[in-house]
Amino acid sequence: MKIGVKILPRNEVLDTQGRAVEGTLKAHGRAVNQARVGKYVQLDVAETDQAKALAKAKEIAEFVLYNPLIETFELEVVG
Amino acid sequence: MKIGVKILPRNEVLDTQGRAVEGTLKAHGRAVNQARVGKYVQLDVAETDQAKALAKAKEIAEFVLYNPLIETFELEVVG
Repeated sequence: MKIGVKILPRNEVLDTQGRAVEGTLKAHGRAVNQARVGKYVQLDVAETDQAKALAKAKEIAEFVLYNPLIETFELEVVG
Repeated sequence: MKIGVKILPRNEVLDTQGRAVEGTLKAHGRAVNQARVGKYVQLDVAETDQAKALAKAKEIAEFVLYNPLIETFELEVVG
């Protein structure tokens, strides 16, 4: 089962990449209210049960994928 | 309206970050079938209509966020 892990910088943290994207879009007449840039990791875990797959992905995300000091993450079932 | 842009390397492209994550997880007894690492961008666009917000995000993604030679992207409505 594939689980997507969406990782974004915390609101309190200066998101330099997001600012860069905002600046570029503004300079090209495509301004947005806000842009935040993070990471997306898709894990194909060997579980068929959705709850178990999510639990495994959460454990992995907390183990190596995200830095709790500066980031937050969300999980999603991809299929 | 917030739109999430999930960007992943194409299957044909060597995903070095994904391989690194797979290796690390295997070395720590948390092996997965596959890990793919990409980017996640959350755009807060000034549109209240969902279809218009998605169209604007798509235009922005194709303009600067992803490289069609090596990546694919998917949009999602965040809220």
